[in-house]
Amino acid sequence: MLEGYTVPLSPRVIANLAAKPPWHYAGTIVAVEFWTDPAAAAATLPDGLTPDPETSGHGLAMFIDWQFNGSRDEYLDPMRSQYREFFVLLDARWQDTKVSWCPYIYVDNDHAMARGWIQGFPKKLGAIAQTRTFAGPNQAAPALAAGGKFGATAATAGYRLANAQVTLQAPVTDTSALAGHPTVNLRHFPNLAAGEQDKPAVHELVMAIYDNQTITDAWAGTGQLDFPEAPGEELHDLAPVRTGAGFWFTLSYSVTDLRTL
Amino acid sequence: MLEGYTVPLSPRVIANLAAKPPWHYAGTIVAVEFWTDPAAAAATLPDGLTPDPETSGHGLAMFIDWQFNGSRDEYLDPMRSQYREFFVLLDARWQDTKVSWCPYIYVDNDHAMARGWIQGFPKKLGAIAQTRTFAGPNQAAPALAAGGKFGATAATAGYRLANAQVTLQAPVTDTSALAGHPTVNLRHFPNLAAGEQDKPAVHELVMAIYDNQTITDAWAGTGQLDFPEAPGEELHDLAPVRTGAGFWFTLSYSVTDLRTL
Amino acid sequence: MLEGYTVPLSPRVIANLAAKPPWHYAGTIVAVEFWTDPAAAAATLPDGLTPDPETSGHGLAMFIDWQFNGSRDEYLDPMRSQYREFFVLLDARWQDTKVSWCPYIYVDNDHAMARGWIQGFPKKLGAIAQTRTFAGPNQAAPALAAGGKFGATAATAGYRLANAQVTLQAPVTDTSALAGHPTVNLRHFPNLAAGEQDKPAVHELVMAIYDNQTITDAWAGTGQLDFPEAPGEELHDLAPVRTGAGFWFTLSYSVTDLRTL
Amino acid sequence: MLEGYTVPLSPRVIANLAAKPPWHYAGTIVAVEFWTDPAAAAATLPDGLTPDPETSGHGLAMFIDWQFNGSRDEYLDPMRSQYREFFVLLDARWQDTKVSWCPYIYVDNDHAMARGWIQGFPKKLGAIAQTRTFAGPNQAAPALAAGGKFGATAATAGYRLANAQVTLQAPVTDTSALAGHPTVNLRHFPNLAAGEQDKPAVHELVMAIYDNQTITDAWAGTGQLDFPEAPGEELHDLAPVRTGAGFWFTLSYSVTDLRTL
Repeated sequence: MLEGYTVPLSPRVIANLAAKPPWHYAGTIVAVEFWTDPAAAAATLPDGLTPDPETSGHGLAMFIDWQFNGSRDEYLDPMRSQYREFFVLLDARWQDTKVSWCPYIYVDNDHAMARGWIQGFPKKLGAIAQTRTFAGPNQAAPALAAGGKFGATAATAGYRLANAQVTLQAPVTDTSALAGHPTVNLRHFPNLAAGEQDKPAVHELVMAIYDNQTITDAWAGTGQLDFPEAPGEELHDLAPVRTGAGFWFTLSYSVTDLRTL
Repeated sequence: MLEGYTVPLSPRVIANLAAKPPWHYAGTIVAVEFWTDPAAAAATLPDGLTPDPETSGHGLAMFIDWQFNGSRDEYLDPMRSQYREFFVLLDARWQDTKVSWCPYIYVDNDHAMARGWIQGFPKKLGAIAQTRTFAGPNQAAPALAAGGKFGATAATAGYRLANAQVTLQAPVTDTSALAGHPTVNLRHFPNLAAGEQDKPAVHELVMAIYDNQTITDAWAGTGQLDFPEAPGEELHDLAPVRTGAGFWFTLSYSVTDLRTL
Repeated sequence: MLEGYTVPLSPRVIANLAAKPPWHYAGTIVAVEFWTDPAAAAATLPDGLTPDPETSGHGLAMFIDWQFNGSRDEYLDPMRSQYREFFVLLDARWQDTKVSWCPYIYVDNDHAMARGWIQGFPKKLGAIAQTRTFAGPNQAAPALAAGGKFGATAATAGYRLANAQVTLQAPVTDTSALAGHPTVNLRHFPNLAAGEQDKPAVHELVMAIYDNQTITDAWAGTGQLDFPEAPGEELHDLAPVRTGAGFWFTLSYSVTDLRTL
Repeated sequence: MLEGYTVPLSPRVIANLAAKPPWHYAGTIVAVEFWTDPAAAAATLPDGLTPDPETSGHGLAMFIDWQFNGSRDEYLDPMRSQYREFFVLLDARWQDTKVSWCPYIYVDNDHAMARGWIQGFPKKLGAIAQTRTFAGPNQAAPALAAGGKFGATAATAGYRLANAQVTLQAPVTDTSALAGHPTVNLRHFPNLAAGEQDKPAVHELVMAIYDNQTITDAWAGTGQLDFPEAPGEELHDLAPVRTGAGFWFTLSYSVTDLRTL
C-alpha cells in the first residue's frame, strides 16, 4: 500500500520529496526594497488580486539561505535540508487586505521546489548566493554593524537574474514592519489530457500561514538592486526604477496549514 | 492577465517551467532488464494496478540522455533543453492489460521535473550519466558493435543509486519488444490546508500516450545492474536478484495527450 | 610510499585527479570562426608569440562534449570521464610557425581541469552545453544535414560567457583545414613564498602534440557568435566584430607527449 | 603584456582564477577527531614526513563553510567567493616538529582548488554540507549550546565520502589546542613531455603560514564519523577505528606567505 504526502508515494514513506507538515525553517535574509513600473507589477497579478492603490509597483527582493527541518531531524542531513532561495514580493490587495504576491521565485533544491509548488510558490531552479557574516573580527566578511556590506545574487541557466547589495546603517528595533503583509499565492497544477490543457486540475488563490514567525538580528540600511535581462525569464520586466532600504535579518517559522481564499 | 501552462504563470508566457504540449523528445538509452523480489515490486504498486502474475518482479532500469523540444526551438538552448534521466519500470497489470509502472525516477533539470509531475512521473533531482559512442575509430568510446561496453550511473544527494553496464552482442531487428507495455503513472498533487493533507487535490491513474515513437540503432547484449543502499531513498528495496539483457538504442516520441484511467 | 602523476599522490595510485598518459579523447564539436579587434587579440598573447600578420584577430570558438579514457576503462564511469568544454583559439605566430593560442577555456570537470593545467590550458570551471543530433527522424533534434541548426552556450558564476549558433550547409570533404594550426600553450604554476610570488615555479611555452587526430562527420555552414559582458572575466574583450563559417564535427585524439618550446 | 598570478594570465588581470595574496578566510567548522590504522595513515605520508611515534593514526576530519576575500572585495560576489571544503589532517613529524598532513581534500569551487594546489593542498571537487546554527529560537537548527547536534557530509562523483555528526557538550575555553600543529603540504606539479612524466616540475614540502588565526565560539562534545567505500577514492582506507571529540567553531586567518622546507 503506497503512502506519503508527495511523489514518489512508496511502501516505507521515506522516498517522498516532501513529507507531511510540520515544516520548520530558519534562514538569513538579504533584502532590498524597490519600486518598479506599476503597470509591469500589475500585469503579474492573478485574478482575485488587484494593485494596491497606495503602493502599486512597490516590492521586496529577498535572498535567503535556508535550513529546513521536519519530523525526522532533516537538519542533520544538510546536503538535502539546506537550500538557497531568491524571490520577489509585490504589494497587492486581496479584497481590502494588503497582501504580498510572489510572481517569480528560484531555489537550488528539489525538496524546496516540491513544497513550494504545494504552497503555491511558482518555484524554478536557480543558483543563489549571499554574503555571510562570521563571528569574530576577520577580513573575509562584513560585521553585523553599521557599514557592513552584503552582496547577493541569483542566476538561472547561466544568466544572472538579480544582483543586490546592502550596506547596514542601524539595527531595526521594531521588526513588525519586516514581517510584511500576508503572502497570497496561486496553487496551480495543469491537466495533460488533450481537451483539458486549458483547464488546470488545481487553480486556487491561497494565503500562506506562518506559525511562530521570529525575526532576530535585524539591521536596515541602503540597498542596490538590478534585474539584468535574461532570455527565457520575465523578471527583468520588473526592473527597479528606484530602490529603498536594504535589510539583513534572520527569519524562522513553521508551516502546518494554508488558507484557501 | 496571467497566462501559461505551468507555474510561473506570467504576462508574456515566457517564464513557464513547461509550455503547453506538443513536447518532443529524442534520446539515447542504456537499459538493463532485471528481476527483483516480487513482493518488493508489488509493494510499490498503486491502487488500481496489480502484479503481473506471469512476470511479477520483472523490470527495466533505464538511463536516458534526453534532448527536449517544444514549439519554440527549445533545442537551440541546450542548457535548458537537455537533461539526463534514470528510472525503473516494473511489470504490472491494469485490469487485463500488461503495463509498466514507474516507482522511482530522477532527472537533472527542473523543466523535465515539472513536465514529469504533470504526466504522473514521480521525479526527483539526481545526477545521471551514461557512456557515449562517437563516430569514427577512437580509444575513448565504445563502438556501436559487438563487444561495445556502456556504463551508466545515477546518484542523488551524494549517494549512488544505480550502477549499470551493458555489453553489446547483436543488433535488435525487431524493436517492437523494446517499446514495451504502456506506462501507467499516478498523477498526485497534495493539499496543504490543515484538514486536507490526507486528501490530495489530484490523485488519478493515467496512461502515457507517446506519438510517433521511434527506436533506431538498437543493440542487445548482456547487462549488469546494482542499486546500492542510499539513505532517504527506497530504490535499494528493488535490488536486482538477477539481471537479463542489456540494451542500447535511440528513442524519440512526442507527447500531446494523456489517458485518464 | 606515495605514488601518482597529479595530486593527490597516494598509496594505491587510485585517487589521482589525473593518471599518467596516455589520455584518449572523443568528442562532438560546435565551432564558429570569428574576427575580433586585432589589438584585443594581440593583448592576450604571451611573450614568445606574436600576432599573425596575415590573420591577426582571427579565431575560433569551440564547444566540445568530451569523453575521456585512460588506461583503466575510465569511459565506463561517465560521471567522471565525460565533460563539456568551451574555449577560444586565436591565430598567432611562434617564430615563423602559424599557431593557435588559447587565452580562455572553461570546463565542468576537475579531472579535465587538472590535465588542462598540466598541458598549459588555463582552465576554469563553467557550465557548457551544445545541441545534439540523434539518429532517426525526430522533432527534438537537428539532422546532420543541410539546414540543421545547433546552439551552444557557456556560462560561469551565473554569467553567460558565449552564445553560438551554427546552421549546416554542406559536408566538409577536406577536413585538414579543421585540424588547424598547432596549439601553443603556457604552462604556468606560481610560487607562494613571500618573496617569490612574482617568480612562477613553472612558466614555459609548450606546443600540444595530438596523436591519431581523427575528424569525422564534418559539416560546415554559417555561424553566429556572441560574448556577452561577464564581470570577473575578460572574454568579452574579444567580442566578435564579424563571424565566418560554422562547423560541426567529431574529433578524437590521444595525448602522450608535449613539446617544450 | 600578460599579467596575473595564476592562469589565465590576461591583459587586465581580472580573469585570474586566483589573484596574488593576501588571501583572507572566514568559516564555520564541524570537526571530528578520529583514530585510523597507523599503517594506513603512515602509507599516506610523503618523503620527509614520518609517523608521529606518540600519536600515529590520529587525525581530524574537518568540514568548513568558507568565505574568501582578497584585495577586491571578493566577499561581495558570494557566488564566487563562498565554498565548502572537507579534508582530513593526520598527525605526523617533520624532523622533530609535530605537524599535520592533509592526504585528501575536496572543495566545490575552482578558485579554492587553484589556491589549494599552489599551497600544496591536493584538492579535488566534491559536494560538502554542514548543519548551520541560526540566531534566535527555532525548530530548524541546533542551538550553539549543550546538546546541539550538527551533521556534516562530503561526496564526490555521486559517492558519499564522509558522514559526521557532532553533539556539543561545553564551550572550549582554551582554543589553542584547536589551532593544532603546523600543516605540512606537498606542492606537486607534473611535467608532460614524454621522458619527464616521472620528474615533476614542482615537488617540494612546504609549511603553511596562517596570519591572524582567530578561533571564536568554540564548542566541544562527542563525534561520530564514517568514511564509506567510494570507488576511485582512497579515503576509505583511513576509515576510523575509533572517534574522539567533536568540535564546532569559527575560524579566520590570512595567507600571504609559505615556508619551503
